[in-house]
Amino acid sequence: MTVLILTCEQDVTADLVVAQLHTTGVPMVRLDPADLPGGVALSGEYVNGAFRGQLSTGGRLVSLNGLRSIWLRRPGVPATRVAEPSPWLTEESSQALYGMLRGTGARWMNDPDAARRARHKPWQIRHAQRSGLPVPATLITTFPQAARDFAERFPDLVVKPVSGTHPISGARPQELPSTIPTSRIAPGTDFAAVAFGPTLLQRRIAKVADIRLTVVGDRMLAARKALPPDADPDEVDVRYATSGSPWHPVDVPARTATAVRAYLRDAELAYGAFDFVEDADGIWWFLECNQSGQFGFVELDTGQPISRSVADWLSHDGPDTETHRNGRMRSAP
Amino acid sequence: MTVLILTCEQDVTADLVVAQLHTTGVPMVRLDPADLPGGVALSGEYVNGAFRGQLSTGGRLVSLNGLRSIWLRRPGVPATRVAEPSPWLTEESSQALYGMLRGTGARWMNDPDAARRARHKPWQIRHAQRSGLPVPATLITTFPQAARDFAERFPDLVVKPVSGTHPISGARPQELPSTIPTSRIAPGTDFAAVAFGPTLLQRRIAKVADIRLTVVGDRMLAARKALPPDADPDEVDVRYATSGSPWHPVDVPARTATAVRAYLRDAELAYGAFDFVEDADGIWWFLECNQSGQFGFVELDTGQPISRSVADWLSHDGPDTETHRNGRMRSAP
Repeated sequence: MTVLILTCEQDVTADLVVAQLHTTGVPMVRLDPADLPGGVALSGEYVNGAFRGQLSTGGRLVSLNGLRSIWLRRPGVPATRVAEPSPWLTEESSQALYGMLRGTGARWMNDPDAARRARHKPWQIRHAQRSGLPVPATLITTFPQAARDFAERFPDLVVKPVSGTHPISGARPQELPSTIPTSRIAPGTDFAAVAFGPTLLQRRIAKVADIRLTVVGDRMLAARKALPPDADPDEVDVRYATSGSPWHPVDVPARTATAVRAYLRDAELAYGAFDFVEDADGIWWFLECNQSGQFGFVELDTGQPISRSVADWLSHDGPDTETHRNGRMRSAP
Repeated sequence: MTVLILTCEQDVTADLVVAQLHTTGVPMVRLDPADLPGGVALSGEYVNGAFRGQLSTGGRLVSLNGLRSIWLRRPGVPATRVAEPSPWLTEESSQALYGMLRGTGARWMNDPDAARRARHKPWQIRHAQRSGLPVPATLITTFPQAARDFAERFPDLVVKPVSGTHPISGARPQELPSTIPTSRIAPGTDFAAVAFGPTLLQRRIAKVADIRLTVVGDRMLAARKALPPDADPDEVDVRYATSGSPWHPVDVPARTATAVRAYLRDAELAYGAFDFVEDADGIWWFLECNQSGQFGFVELDTGQPISRSVADWLSHDGPDTETHRNGRMRSAP
């Protein structure tokens, strides 16, 4: 039973996990969908009610029926390395690859359709509320008057992009610097412009620390970055913080752990990187859950075995307790 | 409790359903996401664990908490009617609208994430096999040798696009004429070119009729179009058939009905338009299930109450028996 890793060539986070998998001896294949067709070839035969499929890359042939798990890490766009790329060929190649893989019954980290839903920030906020996580008061609106009313009730606000995507390309950010930082709203801001695009306003939490909670299957690895006493109160986005204070391992409060477990179970995700801020009362406020969030920087600071946990999840046998999406299909012959 | 219909302006199929809904008196709002922001405005507030949302269009304000169901029919792309469209604004508007709607707990026809999965033809074929439907032997490959071997075992083949999308734009076909017809493979075809793009080959079924089975919730409406005795055997794609023989209502064989029910339940779809071909033994062979398939042409020929069934499904109360995706969330307060 083989582990399949779908990611681009330049992916040091994947390198960490690959190194861990090598020590376990579990067969593993890593490929970039951008190389299909060409460096990557695929074939699937559906005859007499059965499926038999293969993927080949770098001279290796992998049976799709023998896939243990699939790590959808940071894959390139299919058919972008051919001599004459086209949207048509990309669509055909993408449908062939992901359509075939969706039908294998392998466990996903993460299931692509569940992952797509989980990227929607309005959905995340509602889902976090329902899972029992404290969420700062939030408004997403194109009504200027709604923004004004909200700012009156919650004068200390931050603004964030709704999608977390890059304003120029519309593409998913490949690296953090291409995202837009969360910023504070100045008092007396005129909200007329929200009519021109949905705007996400959120009550600013006076934080004493940032929390990154990485969840891999059943394992929770939390890290805390304390706010230095001289921190600039306008520096609300930890991703852009100039402070050099490192991440330290921290225990997860029992109530948060229960809620986070419910969040991932109902979201049908095997992996999630949660961002919280901790207030003076020790409450962890949910900011977001990035289903494909980086973890290398936390592992580097804390020494927590995150890549090891990912490798363990990908290589373990037995039933999938984290995602239920295709349960009925998985139990089929 | 309101029915929300997301579709473009020019949609006669939606018009049929809207007319039916008018007769029931169930409140209904129809809008095109292309008009957000602008003609369509939205607002959602997440405070103290609760959600309160509104959509406005044409002077009407709809509470998102009071949505009964959402028909994802043929929506335009968000933010494409603004003065300065951009991929960034489209992404922000799309995430705001669909992220908010995904969190409402309303029933979907169809759930957007389940629909996305269900569009993958390789997944459809495997899913049909597992659901107990007869599927013609199929190969999807970029290995020329695999294609040659398959053609030796199954000499009478047709070729189809893997994705069903338009070769030029890569977009979903808006109307049938922009799709590519299924065609027969001439004997002695050289398969070297499959290395340049995934190719779907399928054993041709010698058909006596085409079947269109439209399923709306628990209702099945099947129609049959008999092949005229003088039919051109090279004309395999019913969508392009020149024959004028009309569609007639037909009963669904019990075994097929059971399998189709399993297919939709496990696919988490409330609506599906199945295409079968019937062979001389009366077997219905699965070709595809289009989760957003048109039904106007069948209703016109057969008089079957498909638009009525869609309107009934959208307006009914009670628990959702067709889709289970967000069951846990729906039962939450």
